[in-house]
Amino acid sequence: MSKVTALQAPSSNYEDFERTTIERRDLRSDDVAIDIKYCGICHSDIHQVDGDFHNSVFPMVPGHEITGIVSSVGDKVSDFKVGDHVGVGCFVDSCGECEYCLKGQEQFCTKGVVIVFNSKDYDGNNTLGGYSQSIVVKNKFVVKVPTSMDLASASPLLCAGITTYAPMKKWGVKSGMNIAIIGLGGLGHIAVQFAHALGANVTVLGHSLNKKDEAKQFGADSYYINNDDKTFEKLAGQFDFILNTTAVDLNVDLYLRLLKKDGVMVYVGLPSDAQSFHVFSLIAGEKIITASNVGGLALTQEMMDFSAEHNILPQIEMIDADYVPEAYKRILDSDVRYRFVIDMATL
Amino acid sequence: MSKVTALQAPSSNYEDFERTTIERRDLRSDDVAIDIKYCGICHSDIHQVDGDFHNSVFPMVPGHEITGIVSSVGDKVSDFKVGDHVGVGCFVDSCGECEYCLKGQEQFCTKGVVIVFNSKDYDGNNTLGGYSQSIVVKNKFVVKVPTSMDLASASPLLCAGITTYAPMKKWGVKSGMNIAIIGLGGLGHIAVQFAHALGANVTVLGHSLNKKDEAKQFGADSYYINNDDKTFEKLAGQFDFILNTTAVDLNVDLYLRLLKKDGVMVYVGLPSDAQSFHVFSLIAGEKIITASNVGGLALTQEMMDFSAEHNILPQIEMIDADYVPEAYKRILDSDVRYRFVIDMATL
Repeated sequence: MSKVTALQAPSSNYEDFERTTIERRDLRSDDVAIDIKYCGICHSDIHQVDGDFHNSVFPMVPGHEITGIVSSVGDKVSDFKVGDHVGVGCFVDSCGECEYCLKGQEQFCTKGVVIVFNSKDYDGNNTLGGYSQSIVVKNKFVVKVPTSMDLASASPLLCAGITTYAPMKKWGVKSGMNIAIIGLGGLGHIAVQFAHALGANVTVLGHSLNKKDEAKQFGADSYYINNDDKTFEKLAGQFDFILNTTAVDLNVDLYLRLLKKDGVMVYVGLPSDAQSFHVFSLIAGEKIITASNVGGLALTQEMMDFSAEHNILPQIEMIDADYVPEAYKRILDSDVRYRFVIDMATL
Repeated sequence: MSKVTALQAPSSNYEDFERTTIERRDLRSDDVAIDIKYCGICHSDIHQVDGDFHNSVFPMVPGHEITGIVSSVGDKVSDFKVGDHVGVGCFVDSCGECEYCLKGQEQFCTKGVVIVFNSKDYDGNNTLGGYSQSIVVKNKFVVKVPTSMDLASASPLLCAGITTYAPMKKWGVKSGMNIAIIGLGGLGHIAVQFAHALGANVTVLGHSLNKKDEAKQFGADSYYINNDDKTFEKLAGQFDFILNTTAVDLNVDLYLRLLKKDGVMVYVGLPSDAQSFHVFSLIAGEKIITASNVGGLALTQEMMDFSAEHNILPQIEMIDADYVPEAYKRILDSDVRYRFVIDMATL
């Protein structure tokens, strides 16, 4: 065991974050030990600390957008070496044998994927996440970060990146397609970059015009306000694919009108209330409503390599560990452009 | 022009159906003239007569499940000859040039597909449907009915058949899959036969047990009541594909729970009220909600040939023309097993 400093939420009040000492396990033969340099803050960290999913265990060390440098490796690890730049995302173990693990969809492991924090590891211990100085993770769940990438900026790719990249790959986003991204936040601003790099014509639907210029810098071809009826008239039948990166309630029928025949609307944001639609809105063009749940490890590595190749990086605001409660507050106020990343040197 | 007897609704009151004389156009070079022998009654006939879609034009001659015998053909028609058994479904013309027509999806023609009744033909005339002694239709929109099939029983295949066959083909229903059919009515009892013939394991979810034995005769492997919580507990995560053939409001979240990962729930029934779901119900297994809108002509022919090959036939109650108002009433009371077909000899 090694003792390391971490930032923990002792209860569901995020203002009470405090430094503590946690233990990391001794290196197993297939483990990689990582000095954590940066960890992004995802809105779902806040949901977990708040207990919104009714499964929170305290004290909790959140954090699933981890980047760092390998400090040691188990004796059977040949794919990583000390000094490598690496990342860890949402998952740290799965059975490796079920149909989903074999397809590289570890997030759907029938035994139950082990989540990097607020989850039970197969050894019975509660998992503790990335708001900490180091972590020990099975090599299969470690992603290589190309050395050309800024380690701090890359960290949100481990969740916000794969969450938006996966549905685009699943539904075949490519050159010649018209894509709409709802929301230009932590997820949306990365989604725009992916869709643009994949060759699609990208429209952002945002709630105010004040992000229009930035949307275009990220690669958007068009920007429209989504609380204006004229937007929905003008864009009717235009899109092959709509990615909803927000967690606000949508008028689903209105958005379905924007799709072409066989068009797909994918939720990656999670509104807590029921969403409603009329079947007429679907049947007119055999449209599809679905949702996407992060992505497997092989796809996460592909996403990371694709990002490096296309100079895709989240735009971050680096913060000290002490600023985490204030960052949570600002995220809840939608006051971040576009992702907070904790500099773990300040822990 | 030829004058033929038809049954028309003079207004939105279906009790007022009356015999009348309508005109059918002179044969064009690519036309097929058909002596109509039988016409099925579809619930959407009632919607149109009732004006539920706010586009009804009276007087109206409904009917889009037509079977009959070719009486003459235009001089450029080589694929049909006098005496052939044929059918006509929902559509009688489309542009033939747009991307959807070229893909055999005439129902999505960008110029606007011409529907067999209560629609405007490209020549400006209102279309008049199958509750009549004969019809003249462009050859491309005529389907061959194998002579081994009973012409009366085959007629509902032209709408109820293709409506349920198309989504099964689109979403790859095949041997080894678990399929649920919601509702054992006009559509459902044909859907069960298709799913069974395609090799799937078929479960019917019905609102009472009194159709259980018949469901099994149609090829269902299992039958469950869908107003019992235990059904949803027992069948959780079982199905690759759910086809909703009813127009009643569903608890969508409950049905989504029945799907496996990547499972698909397809509406072919059209509830008029909004349906609601929680995004959590979709994201847990990246499930899909969609709808299906009839099918193109090539697929309709394939469905007809598949039906003949596998001895699939709707179970019908043959009625006289005078019985149509009573039949409408009984359909609205869900009192038909399973499809009314008008014997046009009684007109």
